[in-house]
Amino acid sequence: MTGTLLLLGAMGAQAGRPIPAPPTMEEGAALLAGQALASDGAWRKLATLCDTIGHRIAGSPELARAVTWGVETMRAEGLEVHLEPVQVPVWVRGEERVELLAPMARPLHALTIGGSVGTGPEGVEGDVMVVASIEELKARAGEAAGKLVLFDVPWEGYGQAVQFRSRGASAAAAVGAVGALVRSPTPTSLATPHTGALRYDDASPRVPAVILTLEDSAWLRRLVERGEVPRVRLVLGAEDRGEALSHNVVGEVRGRVRPEEVVILSGHLDSWDLGQGAQDDGAGCVTAMEAGRLLAALPVPPRRTVRVILYVNEENGLSGGRAYAGAHAAEVAGIVAAIEADTGAGQPLGFSLDLRDPATGLPDLEVGARAVATLAPWAPLLRASGAVDLTTGGSGSDISPLVALGVPGLGLSQDTSGYWPIHHTAADTLDKVDPTLLARNAAALAVMGWLLAEAEEPLPRVGPRISAPAP
Amino acid sequence: MTGTLLLLGAMGAQAGRPIPAPPTMEEGAALLAGQALASDGAWRKLATLCDTIGHRIAGSPELARAVTWGVETMRAEGLEVHLEPVQVPVWVRGEERVELLAPMARPLHALTIGGSVGTGPEGVEGDVMVVASIEELKARAGEAAGKLVLFDVPWEGYGQAVQFRSRGASAAAAVGAVGALVRSPTPTSLATPHTGALRYDDASPRVPAVILTLEDSAWLRRLVERGEVPRVRLVLGAEDRGEALSHNVVGEVRGRVRPEEVVILSGHLDSWDLGQGAQDDGAGCVTAMEAGRLLAALPVPPRRTVRVILYVNEENGLSGGRAYAGAHAAEVAGIVAAIEADTGAGQPLGFSLDLRDPATGLPDLEVGARAVATLAPWAPLLRASGAVDLTTGGSGSDISPLVALGVPGLGLSQDTSGYWPIHHTAADTLDKVDPTLLARNAAALAVMGWLLAEAEEPLPRVGPRISAPAP
Repeated sequence: MTGTLLLLGAMGAQAGRPIPAPPTMEEGAALLAGQALASDGAWRKLATLCDTIGHRIAGSPELARAVTWGVETMRAEGLEVHLEPVQVPVWVRGEERVELLAPMARPLHALTIGGSVGTGPEGVEGDVMVVASIEELKARAGEAAGKLVLFDVPWEGYGQAVQFRSRGASAAAAVGAVGALVRSPTPTSLATPHTGALRYDDASPRVPAVILTLEDSAWLRRLVERGEVPRVRLVLGAEDRGEALSHNVVGEVRGRVRPEEVVILSGHLDSWDLGQGAQDDGAGCVTAMEAGRLLAALPVPPRRTVRVILYVNEENGLSGGRAYAGAHAAEVAGIVAAIEADTGAGQPLGFSLDLRDPATGLPDLEVGARAVATLAPWAPLLRASGAVDLTTGGSGSDISPLVALGVPGLGLSQDTSGYWPIHHTAADTLDKVDPTLLARNAAALAVMGWLLAEAEEPLPRVGPRISAPAP
Repeated sequence: MTGTLLLLGAMGAQAGRPIPAPPTMEEGAALLAGQALASDGAWRKLATLCDTIGHRIAGSPELARAVTWGVETMRAEGLEVHLEPVQVPVWVRGEERVELLAPMARPLHALTIGGSVGTGPEGVEGDVMVVASIEELKARAGEAAGKLVLFDVPWEGYGQAVQFRSRGASAAAAVGAVGALVRSPTPTSLATPHTGALRYDDASPRVPAVILTLEDSAWLRRLVERGEVPRVRLVLGAEDRGEALSHNVVGEVRGRVRPEEVVILSGHLDSWDLGQGAQDDGAGCVTAMEAGRLLAALPVPPRRTVRVILYVNEENGLSGGRAYAGAHAAEVAGIVAAIEADTGAGQPLGFSLDLRDPATGLPDLEVGARAVATLAPWAPLLRASGAVDLTTGGSGSDISPLVALGVPGLGLSQDTSGYWPIHHTAADTLDKVDPTLLARNAAALAVMGWLLAEAEEPLPRVGPRISAPAP
């Protein structure tokens, strides 16, 4: 294949020196997939990020170091890199102690939910009221005053389980509870609590909230079923320290024909404040960066611009994604697609297309179906990575503000069976990442990025787009 | 079947009231298996032990409560119960803090190894030297002075992995190290450290030792591979508080024909000082207790005595097993077999026979093979539980002092795939136990206990046994 490229290149010579002709769609896909699968470039970047910087919550010195690392790494790998300012929240966990006081004294394995208020050193305590749904809480609202509400709800998937983490505190406060305890949103546990963010309603007092392990949550429920009244104390040093300046990291491979048309490849650089943020979302960042490196190293650049974005503050605020969409709202007609990788480092399965009507913010299923039909012929070109399943669905948090403006969003679909158990935990570490699968994810992003950037026609979308100039 | 029993019973009437005749070996096995599999008796006992008492290390108030619970429960379930005194060590973990100091500051997820000395509040710190074997430590002995030795050895099974936990501290001290760090002996982890016991050699200074998670152990190794020199500080409040009086709990179903001949069913009541000791070894205790309950409820007792023993202090000293064998050394000729269940609550697979020559303490393979041949015809009677695999091998820690005296030992073999990940961790909790599998384990112990207690001929063994009297 390289021989063909060189031959084509020699035939396309201009201005006294040989300028290679662009590879065909098929050649480019095969070349990029082959290079991605043979390289440990994504893995080496992830190892450096995890092992020498580690976790990096918004506002932390570690995130600042990660931003610098992102700039230097992409620059060294051939991209044009710049920073774009983002105001991020600064929430600090502090010391945290969660204890069962009765019917026996035991420490509980818990993590303050990100964004929770602290309790002061005197703590907050209450008897535990266990519910299995918001409906049950409302039906038993009269019992909640002064209690700590435990949402002990079996896992049916992240979308279902996460609502108690994000909304449980305000739901509990609305019926007079003094705090919330939430079962970890995970299918399995080895005494492993999962953090994450909450959102307070303006209508209710801001009460403290913690995540318990599956083990402790189930135990408290069983104690209640025995007729006991478990009493728990929370002593949480959590603190809102306002905002700080951070930066999205943006690296570009400028398009050779339509540089004003852009394909975005992205992940988020921030993580929670434990573990190494290896899969959430170090993996997404380094697969996007590795795809960018390979695209920058092509004999000729793709037709359109490829832009790698490492967002900051996905985890507790989404201010990176919002800032980017806000700053570039006038240019969305030129953003032909935005891809995000943010569900770990498992086997890539395909891409999920999210096309919305900017007037309503709702998915347009008809245009979505046309976009899927446009992509369908590319499935064979994605086969080396395994990411052949091209459907409509959600895309990614960071790109959602762009998608709401009409930019076609693509989420990298992955096998998440190994992801949810480590998501937002101290166990989100490099040792859980398989270098071979990570390389496949880089291949998927490189090939899809290439195809979107090189295709004659951009994806169908709702709303304005740059009308295709003559090639 | 009940009809047959009652009919036989009526035919065996004596002294004015009908005394049931004993069931056949087959009838008894089927009855016991059917009752065990239909009952939640083992599960309810385990739930009470775990949820209302919880973990129970030797010397703790919780173990004292568990002893009382064992007495009361077995007595209520029809056994004759007594206590036998055991001196147990009192080791207290205290506060523990393990921190990476360089190349960056991070808390490490660690547990002091049971029996380790503390460090005093000033702590012990050193640069980390990573080794993958005792041989590597010896080959690099010149580098170890003043260091903390990390044994980062991949899991190849518990027997292999545990040696670094039990012997690593003294091996490190022997070459001048100031402490030992040991990778958790487990195949998998969600940031979950595993405690356990160590043994100090008399020849080396007693240095502190902790277990690290797989995650942190792998990270330290990778840092060293990057050329970094990780520096770690241990602040361990561990304390040896001497000894305390505890008790083995012994419940009996007295044999109807040869009461002086005894079959022991056993587990250990103590646990480590975290989690609930659900599988290690609450499960073994309650399956032995449930088997005892069912045997006590038979229409007529078995030919021989069945004795349920809940040992104390298996985990950090084995003083319960040693005390029992010491107190009953003169009676070992009458102990026809000792069964222990101490590898969790997974699917029962069979029994592993351990027959030793009391003169040497070594397995006698010829007699072992004869014992296996004696048991082989019983495999169909064990089929309802699934415990049909009857082989030679190890048996159980608590019964090992009896086995060394010539008592045939039988270890309940179980699927341990779900056991090693939670073993000696905060995740050894009731929620990990499947009630159906627990009932199968009770069935396996009840049936094997019955068969050994009812068989005409006791198992072959090395050394003296009570010569069989006329039936």
